[in-house]
Amino acid sequence: MAVSDYQLIAAWQHVLTLSRLEKGQIVTILTSTNTHPQTLSCALIAVQSLGAVVNRLDLPPVNAEKSLSRDPLAYLGTTALTGNPAAIAALKASDLVLDLMTLLFSPEQIDILESGTKILLAVEPPEILVRCLPTTEDRERVLAASALITNAKEMTVVSDAGTNLRCPLGEFPAISEYGFVDEPGRWDHWPSGFSLTWPNEGGANGTIVIDAGDILLPQKSYVSAPIVLTVKNGYAVKIDGGIGAERLAEYMETFNDPEGYAISHIGWGLQKRAYWSVLELYDKEQTIGMDAGRLQAISCFRWGPIMKQVARVQPLVTSIFPCVIALSVWTGRRSW
Amino acid sequence: MAVSDYQLIAAWQHVLTLSRLEKGQIVTILTSTNTHPQTLSCALIAVQSLGAVVNRLDLPPVNAEKSLSRDPLAYLGTTALTGNPAAIAALKASDLVLDLMTLLFSPEQIDILESGTKILLAVEPPEILVRCLPTTEDRERVLAASALITNAKEMTVVSDAGTNLRCPLGEFPAISEYGFVDEPGRWDHWPSGFSLTWPNEGGANGTIVIDAGDILLPQKSYVSAPIVLTVKNGYAVKIDGGIGAERLAEYMETFNDPEGYAISHIGWGLQKRAYWSVLELYDKEQTIGMDAGRLQAISCFRWGPIMKQVARVQPLVTSIFPCVIALSVWTGRRSW
Amino acid sequence: MAVSDYQLIAAWQHVLTLSRLEKGQIVTILTSTNTHPQTLSCALIAVQSLGAVVNRLDLPPVNAEKSLSRDPLAYLGTTALTGNPAAIAALKASDLVLDLMTLLFSPEQIDILESGTKILLAVEPPEILVRCLPTTEDRERVLAASALITNAKEMTVVSDAGTNLRCPLGEFPAISEYGFVDEPGRWDHWPSGFSLTWPNEGGANGTIVIDAGDILLPQKSYVSAPIVLTVKNGYAVKIDGGIGAERLAEYMETFNDPEGYAISHIGWGLQKRAYWSVLELYDKEQTIGMDAGRLQAISCFRWGPIMKQVARVQPLVTSIFPCVIALSVWTGRRSW
Amino acid sequence: MAVSDYQLIAAWQHVLTLSRLEKGQIVTILTSTNTHPQTLSCALIAVQSLGAVVNRLDLPPVNAEKSLSRDPLAYLGTTALTGNPAAIAALKASDLVLDLMTLLFSPEQIDILESGTKILLAVEPPEILVRCLPTTEDRERVLAASALITNAKEMTVVSDAGTNLRCPLGEFPAISEYGFVDEPGRWDHWPSGFSLTWPNEGGANGTIVIDAGDILLPQKSYVSAPIVLTVKNGYAVKIDGGIGAERLAEYMETFNDPEGYAISHIGWGLQKRAYWSVLELYDKEQTIGMDAGRLQAISCFRWGPIMKQVARVQPLVTSIFPCVIALSVWTGRRSW
Amino acid sequence: MAVSDYQLIAAWQHVLTLSRLEKGQIVTILTSTNTHPQTLSCALIAVQSLGAVVNRLDLPPVNAEKSLSRDPLAYLGTTALTGNPAAIAALKASDLVLDLMTLLFSPEQIDILESGTKILLAVEPPEILVRCLPTTEDRERVLAASALITNAKEMTVVSDAGTNLRCPLGEFPAISEYGFVDEPGRWDHWPSGFSLTWPNEGGANGTIVIDAGDILLPQKSYVSAPIVLTVKNGYAVKIDGGIGAERLAEYMETFNDPEGYAISHIGWGLQKRAYWSVLELYDKEQTIGMDAGRLQAISCFRWGPIMKQVARVQPLVTSIFPCVIALSVWTGRRSW
Amino acid sequence: MAVSDYQLIAAWQHVLTLSRLEKGQIVTILTSTNTHPQTLSCALIAVQSLGAVVNRLDLPPVNAEKSLSRDPLAYLGTTALTGNPAAIAALKASDLVLDLMTLLFSPEQIDILESGTKILLAVEPPEILVRCLPTTEDRERVLAASALITNAKEMTVVSDAGTNLRCPLGEFPAISEYGFVDEPGRWDHWPSGFSLTWPNEGGANGTIVIDAGDILLPQKSYVSAPIVLTVKNGYAVKIDGGIGAERLAEYMETFNDPEGYAISHIGWGLQKRAYWSVLELYDKEQTIGMDAGRLQAISCFRWGPIMKQVARVQPLVTSIFPCVIALSVWTGRRSW
Repeated sequence: MAVSDYQLIAAWQHVLTLSRLEKGQIVTILTSTNTHPQTLSCALIAVQSLGAVVNRLDLPPVNAEKSLSRDPLAYLGTTALTGNPAAIAALKASDLVLDLMTLLFSPEQIDILESGTKILLAVEPPEILVRCLPTTEDRERVLAASALITNAKEMTVVSDAGTNLRCPLGEFPAISEYGFVDEPGRWDHWPSGFSLTWPNEGGANGTIVIDAGDILLPQKSYVSAPIVLTVKNGYAVKIDGGIGAERLAEYMETFNDPEGYAISHIGWGLQKRAYWSVLELYDKEQTIGMDAGRLQAISCFRWGPIMKQVARVQPLVTSIFPCVIALSVWTGRRSW
Repeated sequence: MAVSDYQLIAAWQHVLTLSRLEKGQIVTILTSTNTHPQTLSCALIAVQSLGAVVNRLDLPPVNAEKSLSRDPLAYLGTTALTGNPAAIAALKASDLVLDLMTLLFSPEQIDILESGTKILLAVEPPEILVRCLPTTEDRERVLAASALITNAKEMTVVSDAGTNLRCPLGEFPAISEYGFVDEPGRWDHWPSGFSLTWPNEGGANGTIVIDAGDILLPQKSYVSAPIVLTVKNGYAVKIDGGIGAERLAEYMETFNDPEGYAISHIGWGLQKRAYWSVLELYDKEQTIGMDAGRLQAISCFRWGPIMKQVARVQPLVTSIFPCVIALSVWTGRRSW
Repeated sequence: MAVSDYQLIAAWQHVLTLSRLEKGQIVTILTSTNTHPQTLSCALIAVQSLGAVVNRLDLPPVNAEKSLSRDPLAYLGTTALTGNPAAIAALKASDLVLDLMTLLFSPEQIDILESGTKILLAVEPPEILVRCLPTTEDRERVLAASALITNAKEMTVVSDAGTNLRCPLGEFPAISEYGFVDEPGRWDHWPSGFSLTWPNEGGANGTIVIDAGDILLPQKSYVSAPIVLTVKNGYAVKIDGGIGAERLAEYMETFNDPEGYAISHIGWGLQKRAYWSVLELYDKEQTIGMDAGRLQAISCFRWGPIMKQVARVQPLVTSIFPCVIALSVWTGRRSW
Repeated sequence: MAVSDYQLIAAWQHVLTLSRLEKGQIVTILTSTNTHPQTLSCALIAVQSLGAVVNRLDLPPVNAEKSLSRDPLAYLGTTALTGNPAAIAALKASDLVLDLMTLLFSPEQIDILESGTKILLAVEPPEILVRCLPTTEDRERVLAASALITNAKEMTVVSDAGTNLRCPLGEFPAISEYGFVDEPGRWDHWPSGFSLTWPNEGGANGTIVIDAGDILLPQKSYVSAPIVLTVKNGYAVKIDGGIGAERLAEYMETFNDPEGYAISHIGWGLQKRAYWSVLELYDKEQTIGMDAGRLQAISCFRWGPIMKQVARVQPLVTSIFPCVIALSVWTGRRSW
Repeated sequence: MAVSDYQLIAAWQHVLTLSRLEKGQIVTILTSTNTHPQTLSCALIAVQSLGAVVNRLDLPPVNAEKSLSRDPLAYLGTTALTGNPAAIAALKASDLVLDLMTLLFSPEQIDILESGTKILLAVEPPEILVRCLPTTEDRERVLAASALITNAKEMTVVSDAGTNLRCPLGEFPAISEYGFVDEPGRWDHWPSGFSLTWPNEGGANGTIVIDAGDILLPQKSYVSAPIVLTVKNGYAVKIDGGIGAERLAEYMETFNDPEGYAISHIGWGLQKRAYWSVLELYDKEQTIGMDAGRLQAISCFRWGPIMKQVARVQPLVTSIFPCVIALSVWTGRRSW
Repeated sequence: MAVSDYQLIAAWQHVLTLSRLEKGQIVTILTSTNTHPQTLSCALIAVQSLGAVVNRLDLPPVNAEKSLSRDPLAYLGTTALTGNPAAIAALKASDLVLDLMTLLFSPEQIDILESGTKILLAVEPPEILVRCLPTTEDRERVLAASALITNAKEMTVVSDAGTNLRCPLGEFPAISEYGFVDEPGRWDHWPSGFSLTWPNEGGANGTIVIDAGDILLPQKSYVSAPIVLTVKNGYAVKIDGGIGAERLAEYMETFNDPEGYAISHIGWGLQKRAYWSVLELYDKEQTIGMDAGRLQAISCFRWGPIMKQVARVQPLVTSIFPCVIALSVWTGRRSW
């Protein structure tokens, strides 16, 4: 069912209040061609209703010719912020940025966060935003999970389907996504519920089996037959399986970037209002599939402290990201 | 191909004439955010061209946060009419309501029909409306089928895939859907072609096998591997099968309502301009999939008289509905 | 300057609160082709934010071929409610009707008000709505003025330009417009600030001089040379003056209705945030000119000591003219 | 008041039927940026409802930089048809062209008409179209007037304000505009009601006084003080008067074309549903002011046979047109 | 990612320059309801920027009631040009037609091409247009492939999945699609990269196996289980396989035309910027799937000269087209 | 006539080239609710076509409740930049700002210019932009005029209507507006052609007669009877005349600011493609009337060097501005 403006405004007010937006603060809403008009118009009203100053910064679309799909996550490299000091200045001078465009994993994003600006990504359709409204209880659950990661030295992922991946940890921090931004310099994604980190550089080894029923996010579809990834020293070096594997291999080749095969972030979802079965209810181009993301899970044996440059991870995320997400939902989500 | 306004107006005039709309009568068009704008604008013109008075009653969307999808059939409980005497008064004071919003299976709908108001649901896209324009021949075919139901004491459904369901009849009437509303108090759905009833309360027992190639309506997809429903005393008590069954079970659980598992209506489709293969030609969110609904069929051995409260059936309909629809198209559609 | 959605929502919340809208009450917003989209979308949000149930009832435009202009006040006779029991039923079953269509001076409006429904007309552009937001102080000022009318037996209007009109009073009540509806069955107009009544039937006699600088509301223009109306027994029986008078006479003839020449309501405006000079700042078709209406005033001989504001001469003609236009509605509506 | 789609479709059906549109004929609707969307969408439906084939030919706007206003009549020289054989071919191969763009007085228009194609101009807003729906009685009245012109040798125009213009006739035909096109090769304008001709080339002499209250069409305003045109051998050689005359002179100079000062068509209006007072009810840019055009009138003494190339008249029409129209409404319209 | 207007205009300028558009030439853009608005607005600007004259010819949609889907290729028979001499005249009088509506395989198209007019079809979404911008290198590669066909006497298609089809050649020419129209009377499709011909009339014999992973274009989906077509004397006489084959057979029957089963064009794709994996990234109704078309391939043994009427092929193309396209991508695309 | 996108893009490219926009520079387009959509979309394309980086910064409307009209010049005080460091940072970090919102005479604007950013205001409708495209010849003519001001010690304005105003000069610089921004830190207005300065603080004395035919810009109308302003020590201390003067006085009082009566800038227009007669061809709310501004002229006797804070002038500009502009066009424009 569609969402009334009233309900979406109230949802924004809830999230902005959790994000500690204060009267007189500056909010810049980042938009582009793909921004949902109702999400934008309701955000504008909600920000003003809390007494904050609001700007909209609209950037032209880029990279259309490089990307095989229209998903905002389909190509993550240069963004409309690259070489754009005016836009960056606006974002740094803001207390809060509402990213309705998908400014993901860019060096510019890191630069902006370091200035103390908060960034909240919100690109799922209004229906999903109101269903998965974040709570302080979500935050507690995610922080508890991140504490596990922080104290671990290795994460091992196994599944009945054959996944067996060992990831030494310690070079990168645990990242906690709970759907709102309550501290300066914090980035988050509404809706969320996710604790993650990255394997030590070049350290992941083993096998990932994307089983039938797992999800490939760029394709917004459930895999119909297993795809086997062989992981050596941090990179997927082989993609085996049937015709689905062939298509995945072709898709990966189009990035023409060896770093695209590196293993990206690993973690597990903790959002109780998200469902694995949602993906088949929406048209592919209407969502980025975060119901699945919020449910992903990886079984782990040992842990350790970590640290990594997010910017470095960009190309990996582009492509391998969905595989990791997809692999183990059925084992993982029982661990809540 | 798209439909010209001219063609859609002519289609509405055809359906309104079959529905015996007369000069000076009052027609209220029920709309919401999801109403197709061309269907609305053409209905307005067609109603006025027949000399009737026309109103549009637009209601805000509800239940977005409870529903996993945007399908208007995805959540059937409270509607925008609940606790809304002004809207109900308008509908009761109308001779005919054109429901372009999907006011399905609500107590309010029954209340309105009992006042003598006719209601015609029309939410499929314009292309499907013009292809499946109803005829008086459709009406005759459906009424003949309903006479069979009326005279039966039991309906037994069997299929090569393993379905074997016994449904005692007699508590509920036969319902005839033929696409127009030619009598006071009548509800119908354009496009249609469907004769149905409900098993006696708590009486359905056996097994339903949703075979590969059958359709799950909420998911707007053909099942790829069989899903087996065990039915005991009117309720599906087990859902077995592979990953599709797992997702269906998860979907059913989200309603958090034991009545959601009750067997709903049973019957068979009789619309010759509907095709099982249409579903894979449209985007999921562009249709409610009634081509499939109009083709559904259930083989039956014995019959009997029936009677049931439609209002009671609501929660069931929400969820199990697609399964029943899906099960037996290949056996059934040869019985025309 | 344009109005932000946030500001217009807040203005609606203010007016609805003054109108004592309560949680769970039913509000129906009456709209048509000419409804301002921002006024509508903000009203929908404001009503829901106060916990009320909201409907939109949209009616097709009527009388285009009878009217010389597109002003919603240009033809007042049959409305889209005439012979429309469904629409009337919805309005009667509502606690509050927000009239964004201009349902003025119709027998149906009276009928609806008598059922206890409140009606608030709001058709000026958003800029004027927010500038002239009503206050409880407006209400007190208007009620004080109406008390004067209630106690009077005659109103005499004179001006330096030559107006000398005697109006016996007593047959009709004093009407108080202050911009919100705080009692059941009350009608008002946002923005407003106006106390008025009608001369006794057939009782007005004398001369009205519409002076240079006075306003003709249908034409949305300041008169450039005086127009003299001779009033006999309640009717304007002669229209003298230059080419402006000729055009006014032609305009009046097009109604082809002797009752069109009857004197309508008389009174004076009391809205301090309205200005005579606003009319020349807007395009004609963007407003119904209520800044002028809220300033109109009429001097009177026998009364108690009365309060009068702002321009002394301006007001007279300003308002008396719309009365002439409105005139005939009141023969029909003697049921007040 | 706005017009419902239903009413405008019915109006189009009426005009197309008067224009003898037959099943299977080809209708091309000529549109551009300024075309009224409702007029277009209703014309499309009406044409198809009569069984004809319909095309829309949309041409880009031209001459923006040469014109001081956005009125489609403000610059008449090259059009989007100039040097455009494809568009001309489409129009010549059509039985009927509905000109919703204003293709006025171009050589291309004459060329198209000579092929037998009918052209009907319709650019006034929907409200005026439905109010001034043409009738066969309109046609008879106009043809009777044109017979007077055809038999005259001279037209003399006089008015109380001082107009005294002598126009020898005989070189040009009488043109009859009655709002529909019932013969091959005929051009007309909905709404209309007008009989006209042109003075013999270089033959008009005398004085035209545009009196206070007369209308200048490009300015869409009533003149406030007389403007005196001295006419010598077919050209206005002097423009006298106050500041309005100064502005008119400046406006004329911007065309930078001596032919702009030539006297154009002369005639009188015969449309009984048109009113001189309408002009002040609309915004300037919402209409081309044809209510006035349909009422214009010129007193005439003697007559004679005529003939002239319309194409030659173009530049004149551009500029002097409004003067002639304006001059004598008050004398003329009593001659009906 | 979306495409900026600037980028799409530049892409159009590139394609129009390759198509040798010259200053002063006439371009007609053919549009209908399904035309992408950005593609249209950018084409208008690009054509004018090269000094050409531009028209837009908009035709109403047809055949909605005959087609099971909204894909513009779903029903190819009568078009909006059938019996429409005005539209045909416009197209014939144009130097270049940009077909943004899909005027495919109609006798009218052949007629227009024979007049020397060039036609360029462009209906894929903007993202695909800019990714697959044609080059002169594309042209050379396609022409080289067509030379092979021209010199061949037979084409034999085999695949590991079991395809074994023998097609005698010689009756029909080789057709070269490379994405732009650089010669009078040439038709092409942007984006493209395709060399094709037709088997001699009634000559194709053997078996086509549409393997798992192959694409059915009308359904915009990868086949999940093999479908076997038995081909006798140019016609598919049997369709075997599982439920997918059943649905395909039903889909074919709806055309109710024996010619629908004839084998259509055969050839192979040569577009290096097209990918087999793109289909699963877009919503079905957002594309016509030409990435797949540009990759299709058929292994061939012997060749020969050919010649055929394209008009004859129409009904075949309607239905069998996707099958041929789908069959052999994995063997073929390695032959570049 | 409307402007084609192609023509408006070319006009923008012309102006941006005159403004020396270079590849890789940063352009921020400032927009709000009142921005013309075609002006915006064409500016975006033109900027990108010159290789520059483009942002759009959209700010919510403010001051609606304080302003009597919707003219962007009707209230100049706080703007959407007040207390908005993020927006200011973006503008300062830009090489060029295209102001499509009207950020006039604010302290923030001065601050931004001082950072070296250029600002070009462009809010007239597209038709006026393309008619008054600036040239380098415009620049030379304006600079020559400004040299006169720079060397003068006093400006005396006289007119036949009775204006006699003495303005000592020397405290403020001469400002040259010629329609483009070819130097860092420069502000200009497209379209323009204007040389101006301000009288020494408190120095203007005498009488200004706004004659019949002169223009009041906020009202977008020609004055119909003289209005006499008595100027003492830099302030208009009396406003005399008829009803027009009364309305002007009321309008001035609504600002409730003594500084509103101060004399603002004085100068004369030099734009040869601007016309005094344009104002009566547009609807009031479609233009800010700059044709008049570009023609204004003041006769002057003696001159001198000047310097002044623009920010100081704000309140004056709000109100008196039109008077000065209006006064003397007929004397002045002959001085070119």
